Amino acid sequence: MSVISGKTVRLNRLFNPSDGKAVCVAADHGWMSDPTPNVTNLRHILDEVIEGKPDGILVSYGTARRMSDLFTGKGRPALIIRADWMNMPRLDQPGGVLPVSEFKKKATSCATDALHVGASAITIYYFVGYSAEFEALNIEQDAVFAQECRRIGLPVIIEPMVVGKQISGEKTADALIAAARIAVELGADALKIPYTGDVISFHKLVEAAGVPVLVLGGAKFDDPADALRLVADALKAGARGTVFGRNVTMAADPRRMVEDIGALVHGGKSVAEIMAAGKGR
Amino acid sequence: MSVISGKTVRLNRLFNPSDGKAVCVAADHGWMSDPTPNVTNLRHILDEVIEGKPDGILVSYGTARRMSDLFTGKGRPALIIRADWMNMPRLDQPGGVLPVSEFKKKATSCATDALHVGASAITIYYFVGYSAEFEALNIEQDAVFAQECRRIGLPVIIEPMVVGKQISGEKTADALIAAARIAVELGADALKIPYTGDVISFHKLVEAAGVPVLVLGGAKFDDPADALRLVADALKAGARGTVFGRNVTMAADPRRMVEDIGALVHGGKSVAEIMAAGKGR
Amino acid sequence: MSVISGKTVRLNRLFNPSDGKAVCVAADHGWMSDPTPNVTNLRHILDEVIEGKPDGILVSYGTARRMSDLFTGKGRPALIIRADWMNMPRLDQPGGVLPVSEFKKKATSCATDALHVGASAITIYYFVGYSAEFEALNIEQDAVFAQECRRIGLPVIIEPMVVGKQISGEKTADALIAAARIAVELGADALKIPYTGDVISFHKLVEAAGVPVLVLGGAKFDDPADALRLVADALKAGARGTVFGRNVTMAADPRRMVEDIGALVHGGKSVAEIMAAGKGR
Amino acid sequence: MSVISGKTVRLNRLFNPSDGKAVCVAADHGWMSDPTPNVTNLRHILDEVIEGKPDGILVSYGTARRMSDLFTGKGRPALIIRADWMNMPRLDQPGGVLPVSEFKKKATSCATDALHVGASAITIYYFVGYSAEFEALNIEQDAVFAQECRRIGLPVIIEPMVVGKQISGEKTADALIAAARIAVELGADALKIPYTGDVISFHKLVEAAGVPVLVLGGAKFDDPADALRLVADALKAGARGTVFGRNVTMAADPRRMVEDIGALVHGGKSVAEIMAAGKGR
Amino acid sequence: MSVISGKTVRLNRLFNPSDGKAVCVAADHGWMSDPTPNVTNLRHILDEVIEGKPDGILVSYGTARRMSDLFTGKGRPALIIRADWMNMPRLDQPGGVLPVSEFKKKATSCATDALHVGASAITIYYFVGYSAEFEALNIEQDAVFAQECRRIGLPVIIEPMVVGKQISGEKTADALIAAARIAVELGADALKIPYTGDVISFHKLVEAAGVPVLVLGGAKFDDPADALRLVADALKAGARGTVFGRNVTMAADPRRMVEDIGALVHGGKSVAEIMAAGKGR
Repeated sequence: MSVISGKTVRLNRLFNPSDGKAVCVAADHGWMSDPTPNVTNLRHILDEVIEGKPDGILVSYGTARRMSDLFTGKGRPALIIRADWMNMPRLDQPGGVLPVSEFKKKATSCATDALHVGASAITIYYFVGYSAEFEALNIEQDAVFAQECRRIGLPVIIEPMVVGKQISGEKTADALIAAARIAVELGADALKIPYTGDVISFHKLVEAAGVPVLVLGGAKFDDPADALRLVADALKAGARGTVFGRNVTMAADPRRMVEDIGALVHGGKSVAEIMAAGKGR
Repeated sequence: MSVISGKTVRLNRLFNPSDGKAVCVAADHGWMSDPTPNVTNLRHILDEVIEGKPDGILVSYGTARRMSDLFTGKGRPALIIRADWMNMPRLDQPGGVLPVSEFKKKATSCATDALHVGASAITIYYFVGYSAEFEALNIEQDAVFAQECRRIGLPVIIEPMVVGKQISGEKTADALIAAARIAVELGADALKIPYTGDVISFHKLVEAAGVPVLVLGGAKFDDPADALRLVADALKAGARGTVFGRNVTMAADPRRMVEDIGALVHGGKSVAEIMAAGKGR
Repeated sequence: MSVISGKTVRLNRLFNPSDGKAVCVAADHGWMSDPTPNVTNLRHILDEVIEGKPDGILVSYGTARRMSDLFTGKGRPALIIRADWMNMPRLDQPGGVLPVSEFKKKATSCATDALHVGASAITIYYFVGYSAEFEALNIEQDAVFAQECRRIGLPVIIEPMVVGKQISGEKTADALIAAARIAVELGADALKIPYTGDVISFHKLVEAAGVPVLVLGGAKFDDPADALRLVADALKAGARGTVFGRNVTMAADPRRMVEDIGALVHGGKSVAEIMAAGKGR
Repeated sequence: MSVISGKTVRLNRLFNPSDGKAVCVAADHGWMSDPTPNVTNLRHILDEVIEGKPDGILVSYGTARRMSDLFTGKGRPALIIRADWMNMPRLDQPGGVLPVSEFKKKATSCATDALHVGASAITIYYFVGYSAEFEALNIEQDAVFAQECRRIGLPVIIEPMVVGKQISGEKTADALIAAARIAVELGADALKIPYTGDVISFHKLVEAAGVPVLVLGGAKFDDPADALRLVADALKAGARGTVFGRNVTMAADPRRMVEDIGALVHGGKSVAEIMAAGKGR
Repeated sequence: MSVISGKTVRLNRLFNPSDGKAVCVAADHGWMSDPTPNVTNLRHILDEVIEGKPDGILVSYGTARRMSDLFTGKGRPALIIRADWMNMPRLDQPGGVLPVSEFKKKATSCATDALHVGASAITIYYFVGYSAEFEALNIEQDAVFAQECRRIGLPVIIEPMVVGKQISGEKTADALIAAARIAVELGADALKIPYTGDVISFHKLVEAAGVPVLVLGGAKFDDPADALRLVADALKAGARGTVFGRNVTMAADPRRMVEDIGALVHGGKSVAEIMAAGKGR
């Protein structure tokens, strides 16, 4: 059936067909947060990122249009479009540039538009823990996107996130596993998800999911080696790759960070080997 | 009229044409509840379930896509798609993995998509007793699905459920009978419904419904014989079969549980005969 | 214009072309109320009703589909579909089977579906007196149905009902007259409406309406003669017929009740003549 | 462009092409108010009105359908359809027939349906002063109608009305001028608007509007000469005609009232001349 | 791809292809504010404005239709349509003509209609700082417009505005920069935005935006030289032109004001040169 094949064709542009894994970079922060340097200087940073040969880059529709040359040509990274705007990074930050006091999310980019600008996938959030009402809104928006994506053969990557006071501490890992499952039942073709904190629980998450799992990096580590160790652990747990944002775009050397992650994901290197090699550069 | 024939063709894939009865298994828990073992280990369990020769299996759209091979080929069970997501098992469970404090339900899977992946029917909830507002939302969602299903010839199985403080105790049986009727007036082609507790009231429900009634199992019985006795009583009352979930997927031997239910529903065996035969295995 | 002719063709299936009058039976209670005997035993009752030669029968979409044979063939009654579900009979009935504490109404049956199953008209409520918000919702739902019906040539029968504390006592007749007019301005092809209580005010209502008015029966009379007297008075006031529910479906002899109403509406008999003839049976 | 020409053709059916002016009669009260005599006796009154040769008559969709013969044939008045239902005349009238305590408005008649029954224009309200929320709802409904009308070439006449406590007294004239402008920016082809009370301010309104302005009459004057004086003043201020309701439909002689207004609008007569001529009748 | 080329063709009608800059005039105040003289006398003022040879004029849909001759013919300014109505200038102005106490905004003009009347772009607001709810509504409306514009090749100019108590003082510049970025990620083809107050911060805004930035003028300066100095500073910071409203339409000599801005934007003149030349006139 053509819908299935469209998804297969596009998933194989994103995941390397030889090992089924993918190194992706998230560069959609400018849509949700204050204009930090990695946002306002995005083109320059993406130029460096692309030299590191990532498999995919996640951007907003606006950026995809303005920087479409970055995704054009053989060997260029696959384009992933962020489907939804939200204001979580601005929530309850009274000293921030654009403070807000209520969590809001809108599914603004239509999947067909993403397809038209050459996307290989879209990514959409699934927030749990803020309120039953907000979670249900997420479910509805994700379902509508998943339905549209089925019809046009575009893979949908759901990103489960735990927010708010209702879930915290050691329950977070179990909550992520449950949210991962719900996202997959909804029809996710792959997941972008935070690391649970240890190999055993992340392995449970990968097993429960049953679709390719890409681990995200979250806040920037002070030491890049810590970021690489997270990747190594996630891979050991069964992850099929990464969607790292600030740990790449705010890195001292974005190209090298992508190369190092690639050495872990595709090259089978250990963190120790990579760190040793790095010293010699 | 072609709409009618599409429904007839598909109902005859689900209900055995020789006796008009069906043994179905519900495996959609992963969408609504914590990731219990019967959820995270679903493929392995369904492999065993299918060896028991069920007539149909109820799953979410995501599972239907990921495990479509289970439904492909002669003699394989009919595929039933769960049309709606809800959070009832997580409601008011402060110790649970993803606790919520408000009952929410979204009709997320479109009927046409269900048809495209080969479904023979969809199942959708109809909750009464929580609030007038929530019931009306159910009615609206079910009506929209029923309308779409009419146009594409897909049977719609409505699942009336009583929740909340407004209805309890001995009034539950009468409430289920009333809800069954309302569901049928709305256009249900069949019902999935809890057992009322006794043969007399369930017989009244079957008579009032006027469409095929499939009894569900609910929470897992400690003794499988109790589950079989419920089936036997429901059949005596006029039920046309079962849609059992946890009593099958959490059973020590899911294959045998399906076979035993099949011996009751299609084979005309008594519970005593089945239990006696079981001892000899 | 074809839209007009579709309506004309169908109105002439419902109203007897020779005298422009119609005897209809409402059998849609199972959608809104507890499952009383006239609901759960509906097929048997309708078999008797049809022997009385009614011009039309009002049922839900679900019943129309399940009992479509009743409406198939020459001389069979015209099918009228109830367009909207509501919970008024269950409102503020704490001892009832499915009690609710808020008035809800959903326009669930689409007019095109009604046309597809052979309907000659649809009927939809217009509630005034509960709240401004609720009345406006009724107006909107009725307008959407009226628009759809215009396009497909299906007559729409609006049923104005006065509920709640805002209107009561002697003001009810005036309120029904006002609501009748508003319904007609909205585009009703005919009205189904309660009797105002006396010939003079009902005559004012008929004159103000300007479209055919069918009187409804409401709660069951203890003495069938009282029901017939209501019909006779309504006819004297200018009504074009009846849509009686419980007074027919809960009658000791539904066939005879329909025949007696027919003798009044089409036969020009008096209540006295009918009662005298009845004694001789 | 064809959309423009459709509007031009229809505006020239409503406004007399020789002088660009129009005498219209509003007969849509039955949709919003208690059934006063001018409502329940509408056909008889409109027969008389039409003898007075008005250029257009404003009615609801229901009336347009039931009395379509009034608008059929050479020399008959242009049909104007009221697009929206509202309950203002019933608001805060505890002694009224259908009292309501909240202001509600629904845009119920679709413009395409109006076109299909032969309308030359639609009229829709724009209420300011009740609440920001209610005004915004008006803007949205008017915009949707204006968009539909553009596509089908049907002129849209917006009717700005000031209600509620926020605007009163001498500020009303300025508020009407501002509302007129907003309506025109929204895309009104003409305005139906209350008289501001004096020639100078109404002249400012006409100048600010920049589209044809039709003055409405409001509550019935005790002396018809007062109604005519209002027309004369409005014409002096630049009005292009009238849309009078109760002052015509509740007049002792509706035909003469239309003729007298026509003598002012099209005939260039003075009120004194008309009153003198009237004495001789 | 044709969608891109439609946008390119139209952007080159608005921005002078030789220097990529544009002098635009905003004349959409009549839709949102009291009818000040620059509103009620708009045609006369626009006649003068056009003599000054602006590149584009921003008006409501209603004005675009009534004054379409102004935009017809070689050398005439490009037409920009205001997509949304709002009531901010009337907010919390108890002495105003149409005071409101709640901020409301509706996206009323459809992009396809704008295209049909010959628009080269649409402009839509993006308000931040009033409430999270209101900002999210803006995001949704802007996204829907951006999607429609993509399909029809019409450029969308987003206008970020900071309102309300949450953001003030020196934080305003940073807030505008952040809002500019969010608007661009959403898919804006250009921005219309207030001046941040100094060249350094406006330069940061221009750099962060990455799409052409047009500075707006805001409230009227007492001294036209101050308006010109704002333009000169914005150009120094990298602005690609202006969208000035009241500083042009309320100017003593609108033609000269447009010419003076043009001398800055396209002519490379300094404010001093222009003021000196002006004295000689």
